[in-house]
Amino acid sequence: MQNVNYPTSETLKTVLKRPFINLSALSTIIDDIFQTVRLEKDQALINYTEQFDKVNLDNLMVSEEEYKYAFNQVEAVDKECIQVAYDNIFKFHIAQKRQMDKVETSPGVECWSESRAIGSVGLYIPGGSAPLFSTVLMLGIPATIAGCEQISIATPPQADGTVHPLIVYCAKLCGIETIYKVGGAQAIAALTFGTESVKVVDKIFGPGNQYVTAAKMKATQLGLAIDFPAGPSELLVYTNATSNPAFVASDLLSQAEHGPDSQVILLGTDEATLKQVQDEIDIQLLALPRIDIAKKALSNSKCILVKDENEALNCINQYGPEHLILAVNDTQSLLPSIKNAGSVFLGHFTPESAGDYASGTNHTLPTNGFAKVYSGVNLDAFTKRITFQEITQTGLKSLSKVIMRMAQQEQLEAHKNAVKIRMI
Amino acid sequence: MQNVNYPTSETLKTVLKRPFINLSALSTIIDDIFQTVRLEKDQALINYTEQFDKVNLDNLMVSEEEYKYAFNQVEAVDKECIQVAYDNIFKFHIAQKRQMDKVETSPGVECWSESRAIGSVGLYIPGGSAPLFSTVLMLGIPATIAGCEQISIATPPQADGTVHPLIVYCAKLCGIETIYKVGGAQAIAALTFGTESVKVVDKIFGPGNQYVTAAKMKATQLGLAIDFPAGPSELLVYTNATSNPAFVASDLLSQAEHGPDSQVILLGTDEATLKQVQDEIDIQLLALPRIDIAKKALSNSKCILVKDENEALNCINQYGPEHLILAVNDTQSLLPSIKNAGSVFLGHFTPESAGDYASGTNHTLPTNGFAKVYSGVNLDAFTKRITFQEITQTGLKSLSKVIMRMAQQEQLEAHKNAVKIRMI
Repeated sequence: MQNVNYPTSETLKTVLKRPFINLSALSTIIDDIFQTVRLEKDQALINYTEQFDKVNLDNLMVSEEEYKYAFNQVEAVDKECIQVAYDNIFKFHIAQKRQMDKVETSPGVECWSESRAIGSVGLYIPGGSAPLFSTVLMLGIPATIAGCEQISIATPPQADGTVHPLIVYCAKLCGIETIYKVGGAQAIAALTFGTESVKVVDKIFGPGNQYVTAAKMKATQLGLAIDFPAGPSELLVYTNATSNPAFVASDLLSQAEHGPDSQVILLGTDEATLKQVQDEIDIQLLALPRIDIAKKALSNSKCILVKDENEALNCINQYGPEHLILAVNDTQSLLPSIKNAGSVFLGHFTPESAGDYASGTNHTLPTNGFAKVYSGVNLDAFTKRITFQEITQTGLKSLSKVIMRMAQQEQLEAHKNAVKIRMI
Repeated sequence: MQNVNYPTSETLKTVLKRPFINLSALSTIIDDIFQTVRLEKDQALINYTEQFDKVNLDNLMVSEEEYKYAFNQVEAVDKECIQVAYDNIFKFHIAQKRQMDKVETSPGVECWSESRAIGSVGLYIPGGSAPLFSTVLMLGIPATIAGCEQISIATPPQADGTVHPLIVYCAKLCGIETIYKVGGAQAIAALTFGTESVKVVDKIFGPGNQYVTAAKMKATQLGLAIDFPAGPSELLVYTNATSNPAFVASDLLSQAEHGPDSQVILLGTDEATLKQVQDEIDIQLLALPRIDIAKKALSNSKCILVKDENEALNCINQYGPEHLILAVNDTQSLLPSIKNAGSVFLGHFTPESAGDYASGTNHTLPTNGFAKVYSGVNLDAFTKRITFQEITQTGLKSLSKVIMRMAQQEQLEAHKNAVKIRMI
């Protein structure tokens, strides 16, 4: 870790700067993949899967048999654990449903809004070394609560051409029947244009590597919506003399093991604690199977010592971490001052892992400073709100002077007429 | 109007197709403007304003004196009208504030979310022939209710180098002190990179022409957020035998006068009514100052006769209009079936003009079919939600098996350790 003591605001700016990911460098490759998928459809997907994933596919869809097979493959203990996670995630997301009361803004003028599900959503589940079935729950549960009519999953196949049973199982649990065995930018292109097998969607969700992110950005240029652009995962832990160094070290390592580009920041007001955390990291690191990845991530990470709580809060808000752990005794007084963060974990017994899997909050969160503007994935992300208004004849009369005058001042005579003609 | 009777689903698809706007055709111009503004800053803005708006500026900011002058210039009647609109918009948007209750997803596991304002927002107010001061209210009021720390407006100057007093007045009423006299793609570039005068923002809101829209899309590639991509304004009016043809005609014309590319759709189940509406349009049209614009828009517009209410609803949802007027007697039964629309106006005395100015709902709405995925501008658009969680020692213990198992199955050992180490 790079130790930074009492940084000036200029130093802090440099220290908190994230590595720049130049997605536009990928644009030629992405454009080419999009063009090919648009023209050659399923065949393009089959070819790319052979090229990139080294898998020969006959069929791009997970079949009914594969569903059944997956169901039998998954161990009872996994089914139990997944059910607990499912229930908690369900409880937290269904609690986000809300109905707005009608507002009578003037006598006879009623305005309100109502939620409607987005019709068709595509959930991208990354492949790679491990089956990220937890992401299926995190995206699938709010999508089904919202009531999206068409929910499909795209995920790269394993070496044997199947999708991991835990992914298939979680999809089924969420009631999702459509899983495409395709990953990477080609999956995003397929969801954008549609192919013989893949249906076009309105909005694409889910994490992915740079190619997937660049492809999602391309999809927005073609009229689709996305959750948000994704970058490497991030964790900032705030400590003081009340922190437990071993706990903090374990949290930082859980972030560091994600990938060599993971962003890990240890922040604190107590120098001794920061030192103890780093000593603990050195010890705990040795026991990790993903030690090389974690070491690489840690070599880019920062340990920042600040004067007081206010400076710590300033640092947090300037960075806007995806995950923020307040690993201190008194957390409540800090909350109103937390302005930019994706998800916040309070106290000594709330590790990030809890939110990653089973506490109920969503783990699909804004990275790369996007916490300053975007919410993490929530129920609203799968819906849009329509406003409604109903005005009585008397209500319109009482507003008529205002509307007609404003329309006239904007030189929109027909807007004025639409009120005038109703003054009967 | 193009009359389309009892369209098949294939015909309907063609009829409802919007003209394709190829923003990528503008990319060379936009890239060039962005590059120039990034390098030459204020000087580039001054040069572009001279080139595009034919105005020589000494200062890009509206001065304190201009504020005072505007305040004196605005007539009392306008101040009164604007105040009524302000109050209604304020009432409707403050009612959108919400606090989520804490959810105890498992014993000892508390999860909730809280809203935080986006720090810095830029509001784009188009110039052109008329001062669109109503848009200042529509964007400025929710921005101030949300509590955004830095709110700035960018709007092209008038021929004399000033900003129209009604725009300045509305900004002041919203408590906005920063108005940049710059429009077009160069304004968006300035808000993206910052210049000597213009501060960088996190998110850009507001309508604009194709150049502004293309520039907003470019800004998203550079890490900013936007409300949504904008296209030409749209209205669909649903009619049956209970409709008032003169009222409906006035609404369609209020849409048609916006611009020659305005999208106007008249839909109905009663052929005689549709005919009467078109006759009324011919009469009312003659009295309009913007007759040429309206005529052009109408020449591209459609009149669609469908068999029944169900087909009408299908047509509405397939199109996803920005504005939808249900100009019929029984509207309530239709509402649950309206899935895609920006803002809906119910009954005979709820013209679109009301929502454009003074009923309280927002008039910055998704066009071009984006109503299928995006909400219109609302309070949430100026905030993001942060999730929080707090777990007790016992709470974590009860979830520990689940988290550890799932982490292990995702091959993330350090995630498992972060829980294991706390089991003391």
